[in-house]
Formats: sequence, structure tokens, C-alpha cells
Amino acid sequence: MTAMPSPDTLKRLATIVGDRYAIQSPRDMVPYLIEWREIWTGKTPMVLRPSSTEEVSRILAIANETRTTIVPQGGNTGLVGGQLPFETGNEIVLSLDRMNRIRKVDAANYSMTVEAGVTLKTVQDEAANADRFFPLSLESEGSCRIGGNLSTNAGGLAVLAYGSARDLCLGLEVVLADGRIWNGLKSLRKDNTGYDLKSLFLGAEGTLGVITAAVVKLFARPAARATGFAALPSLQAVIDLLSLARDMSGSRVTAIELFPRNGLEFTFKHFNVRDPFAAQAPWYVLIELSGSGDLDEVLTQIFAEGAEKDLVLDATIAQSEAQRRDLWYMRKAIVEVQKLEGGSIKHDVSVPLSHIPQFVPDGIKALLEYMPGARPMPFGHVGDGNIHFNVSQPIGMDKQQFLSHWHEMNMVLYDVVLKHGGSISAEHGIGRLKRDMMSKIKSPVELGMMRDLKKMFDPNNILNPGKVLPE
Amino acid sequence: MTAMPSPDTLKRLATIVGDRYAIQSPRDMVPYLIEWREIWTGKTPMVLRPSSTEEVSRILAIANETRTTIVPQGGNTGLVGGQLPFETGNEIVLSLDRMNRIRKVDAANYSMTVEAGVTLKTVQDEAANADRFFPLSLESEGSCRIGGNLSTNAGGLAVLAYGSARDLCLGLEVVLADGRIWNGLKSLRKDNTGYDLKSLFLGAEGTLGVITAAVVKLFARPAARATGFAALPSLQAVIDLLSLARDMSGSRVTAIELFPRNGLEFTFKHFNVRDPFAAQAPWYVLIELSGSGDLDEVLTQIFAEGAEKDLVLDATIAQSEAQRRDLWYMRKAIVEVQKLEGGSIKHDVSVPLSHIPQFVPDGIKALLEYMPGARPMPFGHVGDGNIHFNVSQPIGMDKQQFLSHWHEMNMVLYDVVLKHGGSISAEHGIGRLKRDMMSKIKSPVELGMMRDLKKMFDPNNILNPGKVLPE
Repeated sequence: MTAMPSPDTLKRLATIVGDRYAIQSPRDMVPYLIEWREIWTGKTPMVLRPSSTEEVSRILAIANETRTTIVPQGGNTGLVGGQLPFETGNEIVLSLDRMNRIRKVDAANYSMTVEAGVTLKTVQDEAANADRFFPLSLESEGSCRIGGNLSTNAGGLAVLAYGSARDLCLGLEVVLADGRIWNGLKSLRKDNTGYDLKSLFLGAEGTLGVITAAVVKLFARPAARATGFAALPSLQAVIDLLSLARDMSGSRVTAIELFPRNGLEFTFKHFNVRDPFAAQAPWYVLIELSGSGDLDEVLTQIFAEGAEKDLVLDATIAQSEAQRRDLWYMRKAIVEVQKLEGGSIKHDVSVPLSHIPQFVPDGIKALLEYMPGARPMPFGHVGDGNIHFNVSQPIGMDKQQFLSHWHEMNMVLYDVVLKHGGSISAEHGIGRLKRDMMSKIKSPVELGMMRDLKKMFDPNNILNPGKVLPE
Repeated sequence: MTAMPSPDTLKRLATIVGDRYAIQSPRDMVPYLIEWREIWTGKTPMVLRPSSTEEVSRILAIANETRTTIVPQGGNTGLVGGQLPFETGNEIVLSLDRMNRIRKVDAANYSMTVEAGVTLKTVQDEAANADRFFPLSLESEGSCRIGGNLSTNAGGLAVLAYGSARDLCLGLEVVLADGRIWNGLKSLRKDNTGYDLKSLFLGAEGTLGVITAAVVKLFARPAARATGFAALPSLQAVIDLLSLARDMSGSRVTAIELFPRNGLEFTFKHFNVRDPFAAQAPWYVLIELSGSGDLDEVLTQIFAEGAEKDLVLDATIAQSEAQRRDLWYMRKAIVEVQKLEGGSIKHDVSVPLSHIPQFVPDGIKALLEYMPGARPMPFGHVGDGNIHFNVSQPIGMDKQQFLSHWHEMNMVLYDVVLKHGGSISAEHGIGRLKRDMMSKIKSPVELGMMRDLKKMFDPNNILNPGKVLPE
């Protein structure tokens, strides 16, 4: 149970950042409390906007002393409610948005030291300015912040080749629950001196400490790209085409995104996009190679060999940057069109790649048994085994009535996911949305270790309580 | 302080594995107690060789109950003494060498589930049998075991492109100090459901739990390789050539290994190897590209462009698999020749890549100030910022007298390493060799977190005590 901070505590906290950056006006708080899909609206007596690690440290020391609960927040773009205070109105929001300095760009070391509040887009741009590449890429990249990306171990469009946020981090600066600062800002590729503390905070959603800065990995800028779109006869063909493409390209496949036929039809219906192929197919992929040399030629050979092996029914390769953008627009569109087809119930799940051909039909079958007429639309990062297994409402059903099935429909699909050795949250995290699933998906041994870690790092339970772990 | 297990405890432990696999004969114990460089010889009342996770679990439960200390061991190839019991003779050695089953090869998922006692070579071979590639590669790969590789976060020759052991692991099975089994054998590329427990055990050198099995990542087998050897005018040229090669190859540089002129001269002197170039140069690199296509052509272009930019003085590219092996033989030879030049004091250090051009001369200067006539030979995984900064004895000095400077000479170099933001153990770990350095290289905050973790996971301090953390 959280308690409302006393007026004296609020005053002490406000003094640290200065009144201007201790927001108490309900209107000014709005951007920190609403969630863009409007699933939740948080409540708080104060939003604190510190400008330095030192200020964060002083805030947490007081919070720990006074048992004031703190909800760390980056760009407020999370999809599981981890960044929002509960409706009790007792929790302080700690926004990192003013900690937005690039501390160091080290091109020769392929690394950059950034504060938590730098937007992902800025990290990408600063890397490009140094003739380097930062691969993390999400739809919200203009507004999400790197501290939030790291705290949630964000995934996105480039995991296949470069890994998720945890894999892209060399070092961290973290303020612990009692205000102590851990300077773990190493920029080394190899450092075998003790336990991997960094990985604990990455993906902990602000429940073990507050990430204030990080050293991220940079890569060489790909000098060439080839982007294609292909129609495939089956899900097995998708998996086999990925293997073929990896072999033939020397592991230069940097994206393979899945589209079901019904998703494309939504796109053709609602947007000014035409079917690139004469005949219909059950599945499609957008595939991209990155690196150097004549990758269009490599991709052409892959599609030809794929056709030879009956993996590819038809295919097209972007001949210009504009055509490349058009292909990627299909990936953006498939998210947007779901809003135009009424209610949509979301799933962010993963299974081993080898299970995709059986998992997807099993999932569709279970969903249709639960609700005949529902329109499952499994799409997304198939190369990572990560399917956004969304379900559009049956035609003609009342939207609110459909959405009232959210939880039960989740459970139907999660059962199939777990049978296939999968994860019920591939990239979005647990937050408050899925915390009650934890006892279902984790063994007592694993949950016990997590609870012990939480107790060790945050004995007074002031850091984002009720997120990740059920109370 | 460890205490000698009682005869009753020894009997209970032996019963679990059967007398045949509870070694008490001094002669049969030898392979488990000597260290190949003969720095230490361990002592133990019993070597236990369980064949299953269940047996490991029962052993640890009894050990925890009776406060019997356990030293987990893989292939006994570690370089910092982490795998050996102390000379007290009170500690039980727990060898994982009989847990050597491949549980599952999942080629479509690019993963393999292996028990801890499988040798690294076998993991590589099984991957190849499935037309896949497991990149971890070390000199000891024929005898080291994957459980040890993971427990020490082993590095080696392929870290530049594929990461170290921690990066190659998708899931773990671990027996905790009290005998509970954690089944974390997930084979997912994306799973954001709570804290990253796996990374804690990876690199903990058996002090937090005993790794009994793992799911490792596999990759596409490179269809093509290009291997070259180049003479360079400076260390800055090494760093710049790596950037150039990454840009021009589309990030397909899979190795770049550094050789100083004196190291090559040792090789020419002791082995049947000729200088490939007419003129001498201060620095050399072995560079390898892996992937597909005509990589020899790409490497030729890289060397030509490097020569144009004054980064490369001379270069040669292997024209056959035999020539490729010859180039890699130089890398093996530089380790061997050091034994033939008298005493050699070893360092396994890393700095940010951008610091290499200043760090190496700073290191040489400090070493020569400490001991005029000493022959520093910085070589190795320069692309990771990881230099094996070994020092051969001055000509004519007594070997034992030279080696008596081991610790002091380490301290001289470590000071330079720390000034450059580096690590005193890039890939070999801490073990017993470097544990007393921990309070020098870690902040009280960081050391405090490590101690708290150790207490949490192993409250009775039965797992490899006195390793990693000072007592």
C-alpha cells in the first residue's frame, strides 16, 4: 500500500528540482499521466523533472526515507502501463525528460554515452552525424527516450540482426533506491570482472533502480540496402526462406516482417496501396538486407532460388529509395488499418522460430473457437519468432462488447503460446498490464528469485511498486 | 573458513553419484586438481561426477545442509584458478564432465540445448552437422566445456562479430545453492517477462549457482571467408583500418588480431615461418571477413584503400585454405613462442578501442620504467580493445627472479589500464588470481551490490567461496 506523501515531503522534493520543474498543476501534468491508447489515466500529486543524476539521487534518498513511491518515466510511450502512476494518486512521477545531454560520442570505439532523457531519434541522429549507426528502431522513436528503451529492453525492427536494447548497452549509470549512484558507465566490449549488474536493470522497468545514463553500442553505417516483398505459400516457407536468405547473403538479413493476407486486404481497402502481385497468397514478407556491395543482386538470387524451391510464389524488389519507403509503409499501415476495422485486441507474443508454422494455425484455431467470426491478424517480427497476434472484431459486433473480451481472449492465446514454449510478452514488457500473469508463466523458483532481487534492491518498495511483480 | 566434510557427509555425497564416480584416489584426482600452467595445485577429499541435473540438485542440497563447500568444474582449462579447490583440502570438486548430452538441436530456431559438460568442440561440430555455426572459439576448445565457457563468459577469437559467451546464450538451467533447480531453458529471441536472471549466472564463475544446461544461439555457416595479413605504420592505423574495413565490407569483419614486430620476430626465430613482407613494420594485423560472395575482392579493395590512406604498408591475402591456416598459425605461434623466450608475465586487459593508440605506448613506457630490458609484447583481440599485454623477461635474467615480479608488474600495467577506463580482466575472469584487485577496481556501491547478490543466492557461502569476491 502506498501512502500520500506529506506536504513537507512534497516541499522537500520540489526544492531539489526547483518549483518550475515540480509540476503540481493538473493541466501541466496531463502529458505525463495519459497513455496514448487511453487505457489508463494516472494520478499524482507531483511530477518531478530533475536535470542531473545528483538531483535524482537526492530525490530517491528522500523518497526512501519518507517511503514515498516513485514512478520513473521516459517518453511515456510504453504499452503496458509501466510508466504511469496508479489511480490512488499517491505516487510521484519522476520524469527523466530534462536529462537529455549527449555526454560523449566515441566513433572510434563505436559507442556513445547518453543521458536517459535523450529521445531515441536523437541517439540515431547523433550516431549518423558521427558516421555511425544506432540500430534500435521503434514506431515511437521520435518521442520515446533511451532510458525508457533500456529500462524496458525495447525490441522493434532491428532485433534480428542487432539484438534488443539490452544487447545494445555497454554500460549504465543507475541511481539505487536509497539514492546511491552506481557509475557503471564502462565503454568496453570485454570486461569479465564480476557479476553482470547492468543486465539486471535493463528490462526491470524501473523497479530495481533508476537508469540515468548509458553507454550504447554503435555500428558501421550500412552503405547498401536491398528491400523486397514476397508472396509465400505457407508459414513453413517463411522459416525456410529466412534460412535460405541468411545462407545466401552471409547473415546480412536485417529484417523479415510477416503479413497475413487479411492484413494486406485491410491496407488495400483503407489506403492508397495496390496489391503488388497478380495472384493472392496466404502469407507475405518484407525482407531487407543491409551491408555493402550489390545487395539487390543478392536478394534477386535469393528470390530466384526461393521460387525454385517453391518457397516464393512471387516477389518484388524496391528499385529506389521511394519504392523502399513504400514497402516499409505497408508495415506501418498494417498497424494503422486495425483501428479502422473496429475493435482490436492486442497480443505481443513469441515462440521459437521452428514453432511458427504450427503455432500460428493453433492460435487462430483457438481464437476462432473462442469467438467465431473474429479476425485474427498475426503479423510482425517473424524472424525473432515475435508475432503481434492481434485480433480484429467480427464484422457487425459492437466494439465495446468485443473489447470486453480482452482479458479472456488473451488467456485463450496465451495458453497456446505457453504450449509452444513461448513468451506472453516478447518486447513490450510486463508493467501493470501483465503482472498478474507472472505466477502463471514463472515457476515458483524463478518468481522467488525475482522477489528476492526486488527486496534486495528496493527494501522499502518505493520504486514503481505493483509493476512487473504482483503485489 | 571452510571445514573438512565429515566422513558421513562424504558417504552421503558419494551415494548420490555411485562410488565409481566419487573419486577419492589421489592418483585419479590429478586431472581435476592440476592447472595446465602449474600455477596452482588444488587439494580435495573427493571429486564428484554427477550424470544428471537431479544428482547435482541432491549434492547441493546436502552440501548446503552440511555447510560443505563445492567447487564446480568444467574442462579445468580456466586461467585464473576459479575451477580449482584451495590448498586447505576441505572443498569438494563438482565436475560436470559426465553431463555431456546434446539435448536438442533446433536448426530452424538457430539454437541448441546442451548440457554443461559438452566440450566446446562438440558444440561447434554438432552445429556444423546441422548446417549451422557456433562461433565461440578458444585455444582450449577441444577440452574446455560449454558450462565453464558460460560460467566464465568466455571470449576468444569471434567476439568482434558474435559477442562473448553471455551474448550467445538464450536460456539456462541452474541448480541453486540449496539444491532447487531453475529451469530457464527458453529458446526465445525475445522474452520481456521480468528480470534477466540468466545474465547473473553467466560470468559468475560458479559462485551464485551451478549451470547444468544451456540453450545457445547458432548462426548461418559462413559460405565464404577472406583472410589477410597486413603491415601497418601505427596503432592509430590499426583502429582506422578496422573502421574502413567495417564500412567497406558492410560489417563483415569477423576478426582483427594484433601482432607487434617483436612478437613476429620471436616466431621467425623459433618456428619455420618467414616474414611475408620485404620491409619491417611496427605493427601487423590478421584480418578476416566472413559471409558470402567474393570476399577476397572486398578485402583486396580494403587493403588498396588502406594503402591509399597510408594505413597499410604492405598486405597479403590467403589464396587457399592452406594459406589461411598458415596465417592463423601465426596467431597460435605468438602464444607458443613466449614460452621459448624465457619467463613471461601475462596480462589480459581491455580499453575502449579509441584509447588503444595511446594506451599501448603508455603501457610499454610504464613497464620499461619498472624493468628496463623487459620485452613487452602486446598482442591479440585488438578489435575488442582486448590486448594480451604479456611481458617477456629481459635477455639474460634468471627466469624465477623475473617471475617473482609478476604481481608488481601487473600492478604497474593495471594502473595504466585503469587510467584509460579499461578492465584488468577482459576475458579470463577473476577467479582467485585477481580477487584481491576487486576492491581496487570496483566502487563500494558496485562491490556492495555484488556482495548482496552473493549473500542472497548463497547464504551459507558454499559455492566456490573465495573466488571472484575477496573473503
